[in-house]
Amino acid sequence: MAGSGSKVLVFSADHGGIDLKNKLVAHAGSLGHTVVDVTRTQGESVDYPDEVGAAVEYFLQRQADFLVLVCGSGVGVSIAANRHHKIRAVLADNPYTAALARAHNHANCLCLGQRLVGEDMACAVLDSFIANQPDLSERHKRRVHKLEEPCRT
Amino acid sequence: MAGSGSKVLVFSADHGGIDLKNKLVAHAGSLGHTVVDVTRTQGESVDYPDEVGAAVEYFLQRQADFLVLVCGSGVGVSIAANRHHKIRAVLADNPYTAALARAHNHANCLCLGQRLVGEDMACAVLDSFIANQPDLSERHKRRVHKLEEPCRT
Repeated sequence: MAGSGSKVLVFSADHGGIDLKNKLVAHAGSLGHTVVDVTRTQGESVDYPDEVGAAVEYFLQRQADFLVLVCGSGVGVSIAANRHHKIRAVLADNPYTAALARAHNHANCLCLGQRLVGEDMACAVLDSFIANQPDLSERHKRRVHKLEEPCRT
Repeated sequence: MAGSGSKVLVFSADHGGIDLKNKLVAHAGSLGHTVVDVTRTQGESVDYPDEVGAAVEYFLQRQADFLVLVCGSGVGVSIAANRHHKIRAVLADNPYTAALARAHNHANCLCLGQRLVGEDMACAVLDSFIANQPDLSERHKRRVHKLEEPCRT
């Protein structure tokens, strides 16, 4: 049974991130989190903006806690995810980046690159992302709020 | 005199990224690139979405080659930059991530975290970002094009 600290995590990947995504899904599940894997590709080549768009829609509709996206480098999914104004996505390859993203930027989406981060490090990054809390100081809240505003460009 | 491979680079930072930004500006200038530093803060606390918005407007108007943004972690500026549909920003702490971002995602914006990356590594990341070229294979062009489309969420 999931503990009181358990979260709802939505996972997705493109063809270049399936193996690491599977590892992270198993890791999060073993910790008692509720895991929803909305990955559509079985290995065939897909376009990361499409996959991210579908995952974001599900994540927002489900009102889940965190979205975790994996591609080869993590870069494509991080760009695509941050196109969505309700998503604050960090590309992280170490636990401290993940911690700062949660605390200062109230990140709700973690992006990882299968070609760049080993499986154990990726699990440690995810653990840090889940464990750290948003810093609700006024300056951080104000900046995060501005991320939701429409862009002029 | 700038060589044929010289680029036009626009730099900006919030209060947490000024020192590393200054190092990168000097480094890029020493290599013969045209450097425009549009940083507004002299050290006083500012909100990274505002600073990124102003820098993106200048970058697009100037039609410069690359935008380089620095904050404490690099996360805030990378989220804010990717809100803009003509910007493809990567948060990179190593040269290979920067190379993949240029090749596969046609990244035009490099984001760095002063608290996370040493000055020499940051220069190496910038060198890699500048040196690598977009891979113009059809699949990469198609995916990058999709990043410019409006989001449904």
